[in-house]
Amino acid sequence: MEKIIQEKTKQAVTVLKELDIDLWVTFSRETSAGGDPVLPLIYGRDLTWQSALIFSKHGERIAIVGTFEENTALRTHAYDTVIPYNESIQPHLLEVINDLDPKSIAINYSMDDVYSDGLGYGLYQVLLRYLDGTSFIERLIPAEKIIRTLRGRKTKSEINLIKSAIETTEEIYDLVFQNVKQGMSEVQIAKIMHNEIELRGIKPSWEKDHCPIVNVGPESPAGHVSPTLLQLDPGQLIHFDFGVKQNQYCSDIQRIAYLPSKKNPKPPKNFQNAFHTVVQAIEKAVLAMRPGVLGREIDALARKTITEAGYPEFKHATGHQVGRQTHDGGGIIGPLWDRYGDTPNWPLEPGQVYTIEPSIIDPAIGVVGVEEMVLVTEDGAEYLSSPQKELVILQS
Amino acid sequence: MEKIIQEKTKQAVTVLKELDIDLWVTFSRETSAGGDPVLPLIYGRDLTWQSALIFSKHGERIAIVGTFEENTALRTHAYDTVIPYNESIQPHLLEVINDLDPKSIAINYSMDDVYSDGLGYGLYQVLLRYLDGTSFIERLIPAEKIIRTLRGRKTKSEINLIKSAIETTEEIYDLVFQNVKQGMSEVQIAKIMHNEIELRGIKPSWEKDHCPIVNVGPESPAGHVSPTLLQLDPGQLIHFDFGVKQNQYCSDIQRIAYLPSKKNPKPPKNFQNAFHTVVQAIEKAVLAMRPGVLGREIDALARKTITEAGYPEFKHATGHQVGRQTHDGGGIIGPLWDRYGDTPNWPLEPGQVYTIEPSIIDPAIGVVGVEEMVLVTEDGAEYLSSPQKELVILQS
Repeated sequence: MEKIIQEKTKQAVTVLKELDIDLWVTFSRETSAGGDPVLPLIYGRDLTWQSALIFSKHGERIAIVGTFEENTALRTHAYDTVIPYNESIQPHLLEVINDLDPKSIAINYSMDDVYSDGLGYGLYQVLLRYLDGTSFIERLIPAEKIIRTLRGRKTKSEINLIKSAIETTEEIYDLVFQNVKQGMSEVQIAKIMHNEIELRGIKPSWEKDHCPIVNVGPESPAGHVSPTLLQLDPGQLIHFDFGVKQNQYCSDIQRIAYLPSKKNPKPPKNFQNAFHTVVQAIEKAVLAMRPGVLGREIDALARKTITEAGYPEFKHATGHQVGRQTHDGGGIIGPLWDRYGDTPNWPLEPGQVYTIEPSIIDPAIGVVGVEEMVLVTEDGAEYLSSPQKELVILQS
Repeated sequence: MEKIIQEKTKQAVTVLKELDIDLWVTFSRETSAGGDPVLPLIYGRDLTWQSALIFSKHGERIAIVGTFEENTALRTHAYDTVIPYNESIQPHLLEVINDLDPKSIAINYSMDDVYSDGLGYGLYQVLLRYLDGTSFIERLIPAEKIIRTLRGRKTKSEINLIKSAIETTEEIYDLVFQNVKQGMSEVQIAKIMHNEIELRGIKPSWEKDHCPIVNVGPESPAGHVSPTLLQLDPGQLIHFDFGVKQNQYCSDIQRIAYLPSKKNPKPPKNFQNAFHTVVQAIEKAVLAMRPGVLGREIDALARKTITEAGYPEFKHATGHQVGRQTHDGGGIIGPLWDRYGDTPNWPLEPGQVYTIEPSIIDPAIGVVGVEEMVLVTEDGAEYLSSPQKELVILQS
């Protein structure tokens, strides 16, 4: 992981240059409590006392940390200067900022992007107290654009780790498709996947109790819900939402399969129509993805494909970024709903990895959801997952 | 864990009554990014969309969550009312607050306590926007006192879990004392402890790379540092700082042992003096602990015991609270240094669990640190760990 932290801290300087922001200060404390979500990218271990990780557009990378963590900070090999302190960070912080005399100082807050909102409101007040009486207070600006650019723009190492997580996910899907049998409950099916995860010494991509989400037939509740005791019957669809976290990077893929019945050895037409409408919505979205396009424009394309086919509008975004987290923050491919804030207005950028996951929930069929993972390239987008184009037919 | 969440959400109402605060609103989003550190106590799973967990001093416990998480919220059995929403939380939040018409609304920020500072500065601005034009904005107050009371005041179930974590820690210490041999490196010794942790399917109490901290002899670097390749020689002290996280609750205990040499089959006098000074500092501190005493008063007692014996003052606090986290926030037993903010001024309260860990770092001896865990009771304090009163003598 050291390598990625070194890559990302170098990238941070590039991003500051690009955005023409003089200084970026990540001010944090006691990160074992959760901590600023940017820290795994630029530091990669806990900070105990009030600490400042400082980047300048001229290339300075400075860490001010409690004395007991000086060695740990040095060992990241990501900071040229490590300044240890005992009683108060204030004089050291002021000295560094004074020396660099930045026109603007970006700090970690954002109304829209949770991953750029790592500075607690109370700690922000502490910072104001430290800067009290200086002109630096008027130079504070949000670091949102720095962080979402840094987080979204995956390095080669990061993309490779995401690809490996996807590979593992697809392996596990293949296994589960071979092993799912009529009469198994959602809980039993999820257990097969949990076993595979444990075997590999990795983790589910999100909370285990609903990773995977498994929905058999129309009775199964949709949403972020744990698998139930409902059993798979012939003639039903089974829908999965599943991913793994492997070497700190995540995958997030939905797949859907059909268990043949005597009456319907092939999926009935209404199943096929819903499935192919979802696939078509994905294809249209991916075809339109390229740097500069806004998330909401892609969302609208996918959304329209579903509603124009006569299905109800899905109540979620078409896609989100994936990286260290399943929901990796930054811009999303979603509608301009309050709950998404401004994030659907942000343009796609090369190196970003998105899910594309329109869905149809039909009371007669159940959850029809397919989710692919897609990398934005210089001139378009490419699938990282192997896209599902037909319903998987299970052995009956 | 459901049981603890039910206990703590009930306790929250009691705390609001006690502090005479009408309403407490935990406003959060995308908690897989880290999230507000109070959430494991009052919710216990992730929240995806902007969500509000609301407690009133009259006993209302209300969760406003995204539609897809309605079922999950209901299954906590910790909230009487669960309000799902699709596009915006704002109208629901305003309706609930309007109905309850509180004199004050506590929200999660604190300059001093990281565990009470879960509201990001950006999300705070979102909240202000939602409340814009209402008189509620002037009623906002920090929830710090609610959260630190709730977090610090352990329920019986919580104390039992901490006791179990301590028991496991002491078992592992016993094992390591039997197995440490001359010539082993700090890394090898740490490996014994990591193996025991894995065997038991539990986790280290803090980051694995320096849990345990192992210091052999005077050359070993003090602080939050990983074990090194330094080897244990006869005539040296070996110091450990170690804890486990088991069923979500932590322990944090330091122990110290001596490896006899031919020249010194018994620990030399300077070792004994340093060790007994530390033990004496702990004893004086624990004897003085009782509800109402301030953390800094206890810290001063321990600190004075060390310096009056002619040793240098230790550069850290005498103790911190332990719970779901090794450093569990709230009041600490420390000096009034900037980096501890106001937290040393907060009084001890029954049900709080503290470490007591004065230390001596002597260039001729190395790290001499002992750390006990102590529960504040109605009229004093009791050891939860079995206090170390003599140097452990290893088999040579």
